[in-house]
Amino acid sequence: MDEERGLEHMIPKSRSSSSSSSSSSSAAGSPRSGLIEPLLVNNSRLNTTSQIAIVGAKVCPIESLDYEIIENDLFKQDWSSRGKAELAQYMILRWAIALLIGLGTGLVAFFNNIGVENIAGFKLLFTNDLMLNHKYYKAFAVYASCNMVLAIAAASLCAYIAPAAAGSGIPEVKSYLNGVDAPSILAPTTLFVKIFGSIFGVAAGFVVGKEGPMVHTGACIANLLGQGGSEKYGLTWKGFRYFKNDRDRRDFITCGAAAGVAGAFRAPVGGVLFALEEAASWWRSALLWRTFFTTAVVAVVLRGFMEYCKGEKCGLFGEGGLIMFDVNSVKPAYSIPDLLVVIFLGVIGGLLGSLYNYLVDKVLRTYSIINEKGPIFKIILVMIISFLTSCCSFGVPWLSKCIPCPSHVGDQCPTVGRSGHYKNFQCPPNHYNDLASLFFTTNDDAIRNLFIAGSDKRFLLSSLLIFFVAIYFLGIITYGIAIPSGLFIPVILAGASYGRVAGSLLSPFTVLDVGLFALLGAASFLGGTMRMTVSLCVILLELTNNLLMLPLVMLVLLISKSVADCFNKGVYDQIVEMKGLPYLEAHAEPYMRQLVAGDVVSCPLVTFSKIEKVGNIVHTLKVTRHNGFPVIDEPPLSDAPELCGLVLRSHLLVILKHKVFTTMQEGMPLIMNKLRPHDFGKPGSGKGIKLDDLEISEEEMEMYVDLHPITNRSPYTVIETLSLAKTAVLFRELGLRHLLVLPKTPGRLPIVGIMTRHDFMPEHILGLYPQCNPYK
Amino acid sequence: MDEERGLEHMIPKSRSSSSSSSSSSSAAGSPRSGLIEPLLVNNSRLNTTSQIAIVGAKVCPIESLDYEIIENDLFKQDWSSRGKAELAQYMILRWAIALLIGLGTGLVAFFNNIGVENIAGFKLLFTNDLMLNHKYYKAFAVYASCNMVLAIAAASLCAYIAPAAAGSGIPEVKSYLNGVDAPSILAPTTLFVKIFGSIFGVAAGFVVGKEGPMVHTGACIANLLGQGGSEKYGLTWKGFRYFKNDRDRRDFITCGAAAGVAGAFRAPVGGVLFALEEAASWWRSALLWRTFFTTAVVAVVLRGFMEYCKGEKCGLFGEGGLIMFDVNSVKPAYSIPDLLVVIFLGVIGGLLGSLYNYLVDKVLRTYSIINEKGPIFKIILVMIISFLTSCCSFGVPWLSKCIPCPSHVGDQCPTVGRSGHYKNFQCPPNHYNDLASLFFTTNDDAIRNLFIAGSDKRFLLSSLLIFFVAIYFLGIITYGIAIPSGLFIPVILAGASYGRVAGSLLSPFTVLDVGLFALLGAASFLGGTMRMTVSLCVILLELTNNLLMLPLVMLVLLISKSVADCFNKGVYDQIVEMKGLPYLEAHAEPYMRQLVAGDVVSCPLVTFSKIEKVGNIVHTLKVTRHNGFPVIDEPPLSDAPELCGLVLRSHLLVILKHKVFTTMQEGMPLIMNKLRPHDFGKPGSGKGIKLDDLEISEEEMEMYVDLHPITNRSPYTVIETLSLAKTAVLFRELGLRHLLVLPKTPGRLPIVGIMTRHDFMPEHILGLYPQCNPYK
Repeated sequence: MDEERGLEHMIPKSRSSSSSSSSSSSAAGSPRSGLIEPLLVNNSRLNTTSQIAIVGAKVCPIESLDYEIIENDLFKQDWSSRGKAELAQYMILRWAIALLIGLGTGLVAFFNNIGVENIAGFKLLFTNDLMLNHKYYKAFAVYASCNMVLAIAAASLCAYIAPAAAGSGIPEVKSYLNGVDAPSILAPTTLFVKIFGSIFGVAAGFVVGKEGPMVHTGACIANLLGQGGSEKYGLTWKGFRYFKNDRDRRDFITCGAAAGVAGAFRAPVGGVLFALEEAASWWRSALLWRTFFTTAVVAVVLRGFMEYCKGEKCGLFGEGGLIMFDVNSVKPAYSIPDLLVVIFLGVIGGLLGSLYNYLVDKVLRTYSIINEKGPIFKIILVMIISFLTSCCSFGVPWLSKCIPCPSHVGDQCPTVGRSGHYKNFQCPPNHYNDLASLFFTTNDDAIRNLFIAGSDKRFLLSSLLIFFVAIYFLGIITYGIAIPSGLFIPVILAGASYGRVAGSLLSPFTVLDVGLFALLGAASFLGGTMRMTVSLCVILLELTNNLLMLPLVMLVLLISKSVADCFNKGVYDQIVEMKGLPYLEAHAEPYMRQLVAGDVVSCPLVTFSKIEKVGNIVHTLKVTRHNGFPVIDEPPLSDAPELCGLVLRSHLLVILKHKVFTTMQEGMPLIMNKLRPHDFGKPGSGKGIKLDDLEISEEEMEMYVDLHPITNRSPYTVIETLSLAKTAVLFRELGLRHLLVLPKTPGRLPIVGIMTRHDFMPEHILGLYPQCNPYK
Repeated sequence: MDEERGLEHMIPKSRSSSSSSSSSSSAAGSPRSGLIEPLLVNNSRLNTTSQIAIVGAKVCPIESLDYEIIENDLFKQDWSSRGKAELAQYMILRWAIALLIGLGTGLVAFFNNIGVENIAGFKLLFTNDLMLNHKYYKAFAVYASCNMVLAIAAASLCAYIAPAAAGSGIPEVKSYLNGVDAPSILAPTTLFVKIFGSIFGVAAGFVVGKEGPMVHTGACIANLLGQGGSEKYGLTWKGFRYFKNDRDRRDFITCGAAAGVAGAFRAPVGGVLFALEEAASWWRSALLWRTFFTTAVVAVVLRGFMEYCKGEKCGLFGEGGLIMFDVNSVKPAYSIPDLLVVIFLGVIGGLLGSLYNYLVDKVLRTYSIINEKGPIFKIILVMIISFLTSCCSFGVPWLSKCIPCPSHVGDQCPTVGRSGHYKNFQCPPNHYNDLASLFFTTNDDAIRNLFIAGSDKRFLLSSLLIFFVAIYFLGIITYGIAIPSGLFIPVILAGASYGRVAGSLLSPFTVLDVGLFALLGAASFLGGTMRMTVSLCVILLELTNNLLMLPLVMLVLLISKSVADCFNKGVYDQIVEMKGLPYLEAHAEPYMRQLVAGDVVSCPLVTFSKIEKVGNIVHTLKVTRHNGFPVIDEPPLSDAPELCGLVLRSHLLVILKHKVFTTMQEGMPLIMNKLRPHDFGKPGSGKGIKLDDLEISEEEMEMYVDLHPITNRSPYTVIETLSLAKTAVLFRELGLRHLLVLPKTPGRLPIVGIMTRHDFMPEHILGLYPQCNPYK
């Protein structure tokens, strides 16, 4: 029993040098070229220690998450011993954590807004003063260097402390909720950098939003609160142990993502729908309710703080900080020409949106080459973009003519304070520069200016066109640099200016207001890039607080999404793909119907016996990176080799750490006495037991472990002849990490192999069976 | 091979006389008492023809739906032969049908409103005239007899033409989307009766709504359009054949349910959320989008018709027909005492809501005894309730004092026309009767009156209390009579009057408007009875068009649902349970962890051979009511008995109908040549091939059928030792109808049994294992 556990598969030679044969932690996205021949399934036992060693030599960072309930004896014992009081405690705690997530996210959203409004506000005020005194060069110097300092601060945080905090974060949260744990994506440092990096980045005048980062922040907060306490800080209350599993954490992080959207847009229903439509891969009715509760808490917290801030208690933060656009007075119309105009708007928006995605993808791929060279290159890239943005914001307004102030606005024009719609800039008194009102302000204020209704004389058509082109391309080149950067605001900005341009041009054909056009333009761009429907619609409605626009917004979203879907994927899906995260799609690909489960099983199978030698376990854990091992009852213990279940690497490590070993002479059921179920709970990310830290003596190596109590006796299984499409659906729907493949005919070993997430990736399958590729 | 196919199970004697052993069509809800001993699994073959015959003697009406993809050779051939053009056709058709569902539902919603407003309007106008002339007895006679005639019309339609159209319909739609096809629940006659019965019922002044019936109507329309054409009417276009399966129909019916809510409340986003939260059991992101499209179409259609109806083109139908309540001007406040008041409102609302459910359940059980006696009893019951309602509506207003008209409303008081807030009733000129303004009008107008803001002097507290009590109990005794009756309106009415009462009483402690209190009261009642959260919240917001109330509505919904959940289930779940529909819950019960799949397999197993004798098939189909049969390759054809797959009764019937038989001498692959894949498509409900209609000669009985091409070669399977909880999750998540249970150890028959929906019902499991019952 102590001989080397071999492989049940013959795997092609070319695989043995590839790094991707590990159970569920192989480097994703690595193309598996050169695998022309399909895997042959047979039962010959090969001694392939060398292969395993090579497999084990590469440390792979991406972990899969385990949403299956591990029904081993310990779990069952724990389950049946839980009384009603404990169940109630569990329920209450779940709600309490949801409450805390809401409170935390609301607080951060508020802090974020105060930070941005104050930093950016003082910067703009100071520059404005210099402009009024005609010190233009000095003003530019101050403006650009403020931006540069803030940009460098944000970039340094990202580059040196938490590289995972760069970018939007939505693709990563989406992947996490699909079952992919990218390294340190939800770590506390990431949370810290995300909050401050986002404040600095937005205040630095970049064309980035704080919305995507807020989603990521919400997820980080949820992860922190759902860790089940922290042993380091002595927070190890008994009740928390219930949450030491991936299922409960998934629920919390879904709530966190929803809370993030709710906080960013002050849109609680929109947040729930965002979590449902874009973020989550699994959904239950109960979750809808809890998510809704969390976002309600966020809404109440934000409202409370805004009440508190009335009367300049929060510096420059006024009502304006949280975006809430006022197109409220507009009455939409629904005549045929109006609808045709809206459809036209949607089609063009869809085309421009998919072009946006295409360009973002290209830029991202270029940047990732630069960013890989080191932190200093990341910072230099950020500095270049910052300088470019400063030049653009400060320089482009000079292209515009000065417009005399309209008479009815009185003192409001030209604007003296920080915000306001009529920036004086370089113009003589009683004139304003319309481009400066868009460029030389915060992004939120620019959007608010674009959305203002019934003032189609306010902006010159040429200014709007210049702004649109500038923002469209600035948005594209800014995403991907090493700062936390949301995509919502750039897209809304570009879309709103596009909509206002379209509104001015199409005004002969329609009675629709030009402010409404800006809203519809923003909707068309959002639909064209993000490809969400219901959630975007509700977010826009909650932002504008006018439900009468619902049908028009729906229409434009549906059209732009449909048009854009003809060209490429949504921007978040593109990023997930580019990052090589092994995302499981909900539907099976057509070519999967031509294959069966057994065709793609690739991992070399490594099994354990029910009573296993310690040395054997240690050796196997060392040389493989598998995370699950089938346990087989073999003839001395049963009549024929029989599948007992599945044991997890993490559980084996717990056994090894606590040294629950026995000699053959002693009685066996030791684990139950020595360890309690929650000792096997999943620790927070990065806190697992390391095999290298364990010290096991030679003597202990010769002892035995009874794996029975920690073996999941009810793993999900499929027969090797089940079609791959159906296997994929099962795997995805049940949220599995390991799926055991059983032989069809008796008389062979009781298990053919284990399937993991990677076995369902198109590049893996099409690598094995290139003839299935539909694009060939 | 032609010997009687026996049973693989020994089943307890008491089972043989029970009617519930059929594969998936047993009468649900029948308590399986007397089954103390668990089923013993063994492999002895028993010749139990008599048992099967008895099983087959009872026709069971409830069918399960098949959401699994039947991957047989025919399907695969069809799948691989489908070109890109066909795929595009399929996609476009799907959207076209979604469009048609939206158009149809919008049209019906509009028609329904016009009908109700005109019929009820003329009735009220006529009675009002008589009242103004002080002909009180005549007025009552006219009023009561109008109501009676309408009530009898509605009841006769329901009792004689389509009994399935009675009630709300939401529980049935919910069950359908869970996989339970109750008899003729979505038939065209049901649709017809639902539309007209609902108009008559609401116009007859019953305390019922048209919202539940609209959901059912939407589902019926979707079912009709998703039938894949009709051979009877020559609508058999090739493109439609794609939809001849339960999966696509499920999607359509989800869209239909959403469209129904969207039409009833003019709430497109609320409709989508309703479908998601309450109706659907399975959900995909793609469905979200399609549902959203359908509800958008409904919204546009309704808006178009309302534009058309401006200027009295539609009789008495004004803007008022579709409920849209005007609490728009109210500014909610969020101080601590206000929040406490709202919390209090929610708690009491939750208590009253759960009491409502309890009473509805009791009344329903009583009524079902009466209704079972025959159609005439149904009609008599309706007549009694109609008379009671008429007495109440006409009589109770006399209890109220006459109130002098407020001076600022001018000509509006007293109301002369049909609607309006100040009914004169028996009062002297320049006075109005506040109770008559609530009772002696349509339900929609009553709600509108209750929601009016800022007029806390309009209704006397005593009148509101009387109205609340009367409506609370009228609503309870009306649901369950043989008319299409929605629950939304009674609950909103009772809740709004409760809220207004509470608002008047609590006015010293809060600054909140009494109209807002009515809205919050309605929310608390809806939360307390229906237990939805997000969808109700959005529906209420779309109805009132004021997003500022969102946090308060959310709060009150969360509280009332939480409170009510302590006492009983939601009202729709109660009705599903009472009707005995085998609804699969999303979560597994705790006691299921103590059992394994093999423990509850109950159906006697009947298998076929790959090459099967016609006589044998006919006989088996006759004596069993199984809908799926495992196909086994046996030793002449393979080395050892081997599971080949699963064949469906419906597919066998197609084979028998087309007589694709062969003698042993002829070649085998006949099916592929004679039949095309779409011949096996699922026909519309009730249109399947009947075994008794088939005429098969003695000679043909001796021929053979090759079952290979129609066998689903990839059925989902579990091992008998998989825990029942996990089996239930798998069964539910994958939307299965049949699940094959495989033996754990080799050397036995390759299959242990088939699990169906009924094997997961608590009454079945706890019947077999009473010791698991947590309530004992």
